[in-house]
Amino acid sequence: MKPDADSAITRDGKALILAYDHGLEHGPVDFEPVPSTTDPAEVFELATHDAVSAIAVQKGVAEAQYPSYEDDVALLAKLNGTSNLWMGEPDSAVNWSVDYAAELGADAIGFTLYGGSNNEVEMAEEFRDAQEAARRHDMGVVMWSYPRGQGLKNDTSAGTIAYAARQALELGADIAKVKYPGSKEAMEWAVQSAADTKVVMSGGSKTDDLAFLGTVESAIDAGAKGLAVGRNVFQRENPTQILDALERVIYDEESAESALEATR
Amino acid sequence: MKPDADSAITRDGKALILAYDHGLEHGPVDFEPVPSTTDPAEVFELATHDAVSAIAVQKGVAEAQYPSYEDDVALLAKLNGTSNLWMGEPDSAVNWSVDYAAELGADAIGFTLYGGSNNEVEMAEEFRDAQEAARRHDMGVVMWSYPRGQGLKNDTSAGTIAYAARQALELGADIAKVKYPGSKEAMEWAVQSAADTKVVMSGGSKTDDLAFLGTVESAIDAGAKGLAVGRNVFQRENPTQILDALERVIYDEESAESALEATR
Amino acid sequence: MKPDADSAITRDGKALILAYDHGLEHGPVDFEPVPSTTDPAEVFELATHDAVSAIAVQKGVAEAQYPSYEDDVALLAKLNGTSNLWMGEPDSAVNWSVDYAAELGADAIGFTLYGGSNNEVEMAEEFRDAQEAARRHDMGVVMWSYPRGQGLKNDTSAGTIAYAARQALELGADIAKVKYPGSKEAMEWAVQSAADTKVVMSGGSKTDDLAFLGTVESAIDAGAKGLAVGRNVFQRENPTQILDALERVIYDEESAESALEATR
Amino acid sequence: MKPDADSAITRDGKALILAYDHGLEHGPVDFEPVPSTTDPAEVFELATHDAVSAIAVQKGVAEAQYPSYEDDVALLAKLNGTSNLWMGEPDSAVNWSVDYAAELGADAIGFTLYGGSNNEVEMAEEFRDAQEAARRHDMGVVMWSYPRGQGLKNDTSAGTIAYAARQALELGADIAKVKYPGSKEAMEWAVQSAADTKVVMSGGSKTDDLAFLGTVESAIDAGAKGLAVGRNVFQRENPTQILDALERVIYDEESAESALEATR
Amino acid sequence: MKPDADSAITRDGKALILAYDHGLEHGPVDFEPVPSTTDPAEVFELATHDAVSAIAVQKGVAEAQYPSYEDDVALLAKLNGTSNLWMGEPDSAVNWSVDYAAELGADAIGFTLYGGSNNEVEMAEEFRDAQEAARRHDMGVVMWSYPRGQGLKNDTSAGTIAYAARQALELGADIAKVKYPGSKEAMEWAVQSAADTKVVMSGGSKTDDLAFLGTVESAIDAGAKGLAVGRNVFQRENPTQILDALERVIYDEESAESALEATR
Repeated sequence: MKPDADSAITRDGKALILAYDHGLEHGPVDFEPVPSTTDPAEVFELATHDAVSAIAVQKGVAEAQYPSYEDDVALLAKLNGTSNLWMGEPDSAVNWSVDYAAELGADAIGFTLYGGSNNEVEMAEEFRDAQEAARRHDMGVVMWSYPRGQGLKNDTSAGTIAYAARQALELGADIAKVKYPGSKEAMEWAVQSAADTKVVMSGGSKTDDLAFLGTVESAIDAGAKGLAVGRNVFQRENPTQILDALERVIYDEESAESALEATR
Repeated sequence: MKPDADSAITRDGKALILAYDHGLEHGPVDFEPVPSTTDPAEVFELATHDAVSAIAVQKGVAEAQYPSYEDDVALLAKLNGTSNLWMGEPDSAVNWSVDYAAELGADAIGFTLYGGSNNEVEMAEEFRDAQEAARRHDMGVVMWSYPRGQGLKNDTSAGTIAYAARQALELGADIAKVKYPGSKEAMEWAVQSAADTKVVMSGGSKTDDLAFLGTVESAIDAGAKGLAVGRNVFQRENPTQILDALERVIYDEESAESALEATR
Repeated sequence: MKPDADSAITRDGKALILAYDHGLEHGPVDFEPVPSTTDPAEVFELATHDAVSAIAVQKGVAEAQYPSYEDDVALLAKLNGTSNLWMGEPDSAVNWSVDYAAELGADAIGFTLYGGSNNEVEMAEEFRDAQEAARRHDMGVVMWSYPRGQGLKNDTSAGTIAYAARQALELGADIAKVKYPGSKEAMEWAVQSAADTKVVMSGGSKTDDLAFLGTVESAIDAGAKGLAVGRNVFQRENPTQILDALERVIYDEESAESALEATR
Repeated sequence: MKPDADSAITRDGKALILAYDHGLEHGPVDFEPVPSTTDPAEVFELATHDAVSAIAVQKGVAEAQYPSYEDDVALLAKLNGTSNLWMGEPDSAVNWSVDYAAELGADAIGFTLYGGSNNEVEMAEEFRDAQEAARRHDMGVVMWSYPRGQGLKNDTSAGTIAYAARQALELGADIAKVKYPGSKEAMEWAVQSAADTKVVMSGGSKTDDLAFLGTVESAIDAGAKGLAVGRNVFQRENPTQILDALERVIYDEESAESALEATR
Repeated sequence: MKPDADSAITRDGKALILAYDHGLEHGPVDFEPVPSTTDPAEVFELATHDAVSAIAVQKGVAEAQYPSYEDDVALLAKLNGTSNLWMGEPDSAVNWSVDYAAELGADAIGFTLYGGSNNEVEMAEEFRDAQEAARRHDMGVVMWSYPRGQGLKNDTSAGTIAYAARQALELGADIAKVKYPGSKEAMEWAVQSAADTKVVMSGGSKTDDLAFLGTVESAIDAGAKGLAVGRNVFQRENPTQILDALERVIYDEESAESALEATR
């Protein structure tokens, strides 16, 4: 973790990362609720919303869209990822070199680590190379810190999420993206464990407005610095409305109810 | 996907790729229907047909033939491939470096990804290196996106082919070569999933003229930008005739029946 | 082992290394006895104690804290490490390149070798690269020499610890960090086996003051040159007091009882 | 396959390669029929015979002998090879870098590919590196194309040998060394499948003069461009005599019987 | 094998290599017969004996001792080695780069190959890199050629040792260190199989003076060029005496009995 290294993808030290790599990770089926989101241009448009501090995409999507949006959107290059067509001990291909991400104008890199996987050691070494290359390019580093695999029964327990946040700190991430561990207290432990590394909550699968915003509010209360979200935005009929509400909860620290009311 | 990166192997944004790596992938047995096609020179001659926007071959064939055809044929360097002498989880050797392909004058690279294979992660990382090297040489990138392997029962279902097309986009291919998913609707889903990445249909094993052309017509109707074909051309007694017909179906968007009639 | 290569992390040829990579190796649970130690800044403050000759941390913690402490603390860059979220034959990811450690101002590198693991060969080769890079940067080399894994029943027997110390010498470490083998005589064997490579005792899990200091005294009597300690310092309510006592036992070669009395 | 790349190891487009890597592949037991052939100098002397267009040896033998023979013998650097002390899925170590082979004055490289082995993919990628390095040094490329391993029951069937010859072409070899597939017709198929890549027959284990020469005659009749032979030369009491006869069969296309009579 | 490449570690073409890597390979237990030999300085002193043409040690021992002995002792850098703490298919870590060995002033490199191991292919490729790097530095190359592992029942049979010696030649070693195959005749076969590569006998575990010297005499009679010995020297109470005797047997080709008598 390097102070201020993430400034290009944060706003007043907070972050709302619009994640859009579901086409690779889950397949086009994730776009069925709102078929127009199959088109990356539609989601880049969304990312121009003031609430969004960065968009996270894979290389091919960035190549196609980023040249048209580089003045309006901060690019978080999601370096690794894989399909769910295969089943096995969790792993992720590094699909993008940091040098090429920098050449395309990326502001930061994103990298998944499956702590607890039999592939943890290899993934951590790939992360090392990416993190140090990002430092050479003055790019921030976000870790998707997702314990998963061999022997991990409950991957959102308080201890597991605190551990995940700590791994992000110790290995050199500026921002740790972790799942919500179920309570504000558990999130506080994760935030403390990450120390100077910022913690952002992972949005997860789509839930209703209040439940979703309430979880975000709880995370912010616990000291989290924001959210990385995909489906809970782009699978809604009115994604702008939820972004408006998220802006209030994250940056203005309004309550979920108040934010929801104000943006209805 | 990078706009216009594939211009050297397309014609008016459409593509008819003559694929000729069957000697490696299947063995000389594929040349038995028309033995003279064992000789690469014969197939390079075919590739001079106006309908053909590029020929896809392995390195050794390109070394032997391309110097004689570089003014008349666009070269798509098929970088990986393997024999069918071994059986195992799908994989493919990278037989050709991009730098050497560029030195021989290749206009684009072709690369197979077996999504869903236990080797997907490794293949995706090999693709990364190849794709970024192609960018440095201003060469287009075509992905043979073929889900195959562990746990994949039906590799031409609509969802699988749409996923395959999406992988090509997200990982950075300019053109996705996918199998025909059985219907125009399914092909439309694949085309939409690929967004700005062009989709071309894979020709597959030899079928009769009308059935074959009808499938191509359906793919074009669905928004596909063309065809990559081998056996359905070179295993015919009169390959020029089918190329004439394909030219009408692909570039002029004629119906299969009309094209067939006009070229008989 | 290269004479004087470790001078930046020793004091009069002795060493008290404050180890603080437990957040990665064991998780935040190790900070529960004294929750404020979750914050790396708190432990870096401790490291400014005169008794401490170096602090050993992972990359991310060094990035965040070392710029504020570089005039007061010597940095031992712990290059490899892994979580205990996975279970398998012992292994450790190399999380930090030596070049980057040097850039951050590290004075020496630390590296775990699990001799006896099925991964020993690979780990030894990673150590080779790290050790030689450290030589190029005039940095000292500390090996956490911890026999562990396949077939090793008792990893603190006299023979195993002497072997561990010898591995550190033969492979090129300046300091060998080994577990206490249970007796002064066994520690003497380890010290002799290491020859010119200094041996420091590993602190292990927390024990009571006298028992802990008594073991340190025994190790020093046996010729060990110090201690690498984490939990036995930062899990105490009054870590400064135990550091005061350790200073007397290690550098002044006082007895445990006398040191304890003087610092109460 | 690159036109004329093999000119330094052929004579009038034909080749008689004296192979002498049996000490590595089979052990010294292959020298027992004529013990003096244990000494590489003896076999290099043989290689000065006019019939021999190149000698194929491993690195250590070349280092010791080639400086004395570089004016009289063409050197084919056999890059990979392994002992038969281990048993397992066929594989071969790359024992020699192309750069070092070039430095020693090698005229071409030789490389074994075990098509059909579980190691085919890895071996093909090693071949890629070697083949492209050979191109940079203007050295010819010979592939020992030997389908072997998992699931291959009869590795000299017509289809397998034709496939082996085709692999050599597609992967970029100038000369394919294949086993005799049992008949002139089968050899013709192999020769056609290799197209512009020259096919040479592998000599195999020692047989009697007429049977051996008859097979060579049949291969030449089928369009093969020569022979790579070891034991059928150096295990004979009078190796010069068989070389005299081979010269007639290969370069002058005499019949086996006539050549045998003329050289008795 | 390159003529004269080993001149810095031989004397009149003969060699007595004092091997001292037992602390890594077997552990400190090998020093128990004469505990003072735990200290590398003691063994380097021994190596100044006129009979010793080189000392073979691992990197860490060389770093500590060689600067004090570089005028009196030739350094044979034993590049690979591993502990016996793990059990598995024979393998050995490369602990030392050739470049760094050269920087320390090494005169030659030593490398173990376990022919017949499932790791033979990988070890041979590591040897290739080391051997070619040694050539760039004009350093000699010694192979510890030790068939071992999967399926090798009797690793000192005449055929196995002759094969081991041959592997050393073909792969490019200047000196092959092999085990004594049980008889003078078997050793002759090994010596002939190695051709211009010198063969030295491996000393093995400690035996009585006459038995040991008798075996050396037999090896020398068979054409071996010397001995690589550790325990049979440093585990004796009077190692200088046995070195005096070895000098007579190896360099003066005296009989074991006469040499023993003269040095008593």
